[in-house]
Amino acid sequence: MGKQLMRADAQRSYDRILEAAGTVIAHDGANASLEEIARTAGVGSATLHRHFASRWDLLDAVFADRVDKICAEAERSMTRKPPEAALTDWLRLLTVESARNRGLAASMFRGRPDDRVSDDSCHAKIQGAGQLLLTNAVAAGEVRPDAALADLLRLVSAIVLSTDGSSSAAADSATMIDLVLEGIHARTQ
Amino acid sequence: MGKQLMRADAQRSYDRILEAAGTVIAHDGANASLEEIARTAGVGSATLHRHFASRWDLLDAVFADRVDKICAEAERSMTRKPPEAALTDWLRLLTVESARNRGLAASMFRGRPDDRVSDDSCHAKIQGAGQLLLTNAVAAGEVRPDAALADLLRLVSAIVLSTDGSSSAAADSATMIDLVLEGIHARTQ
Repeated sequence: MGKQLMRADAQRSYDRILEAAGTVIAHDGANASLEEIARTAGVGSATLHRHFASRWDLLDAVFADRVDKICAEAERSMTRKPPEAALTDWLRLLTVESARNRGLAASMFRGRPDDRVSDDSCHAKIQGAGQLLLTNAVAAGEVRPDAALADLLRLVSAIVLSTDGSSSAAADSATMIDLVLEGIHARTQ
Repeated sequence: MGKQLMRADAQRSYDRILEAAGTVIAHDGANASLEEIARTAGVGSATLHRHFASRWDLLDAVFADRVDKICAEAERSMTRKPPEAALTDWLRLLTVESARNRGLAASMFRGRPDDRVSDDSCHAKIQGAGQLLLTNAVAAGEVRPDAALADLLRLVSAIVLSTDGSSSAAADSATMIDLVLEGIHARTQ
């Protein structure tokens, strides 16, 4: 097997493990069985351990992958939707995805024994993506200029925190973020 | 001293203790010194213990008193302000007061050894007051008919929970509830 082929093969098994880990962790939480993740990915335990030296490295990678996907969605959204819809749809996605994966994020931020978490860089990515959407929507005159991204992100985090542990976390958090984005004023017809 | 006079005197010291407890607990939290509360109220420890057999009875009374004041404010607000302002001003008051006294409420709900908390009746009072304000504001056509009180109260609670422990809890929660109530849409001029 040539080196090129080896690399492509390794990348494929890395991607499969990441996807399987996302699915299994969403269901079983951050303590999900690594063997089941390997089984779901169709790789051996040795392969999993070659890619991810510890459970924390795997959780880190799954989380970073989710953040990257959410940020990629911001860019896609921006080119395809009117500015306010791009912002609100993205904030909804961020809220619901975070509510779904709250257990994962919480365990990572609290539990990692070596204190090495990717919180900062993930937070910066989300902030960058959100700020671009907000700036666009304000520039288009569709969103209040005094709506600050930091406050919107704090609200998302408050909502996610409050629905933690509920079996209807995703649905409840969607209802709440909709209320935040719409406000309570009756719309003039 | 006649019986009538005794009763009025007891009521006054009860009220003074409640007020002092509110002040001291807001500053020191639910583990505040009972002696300092008695001192602030200008009564002896014996008098305090005659009125409140345990720390929990005192916390209970302070909490119930706050809830009653917040509910009384709803009634006052309703007769003096336009319907939407009455609702939004009251939700702001509820949020900021809860953020200020979160430590108290949290200790009561979590920590009370005999599990006897006044959560249910307090929650019902707040709900009754809020529903009246919301119904009025919707009937006046000022607030969206699909804004549910339960979701508004969940947001208040999410905001309060998320600012817990911060020294700027009251200010931060005020900023967030304003954003919720206003929504992010630019107002048409």
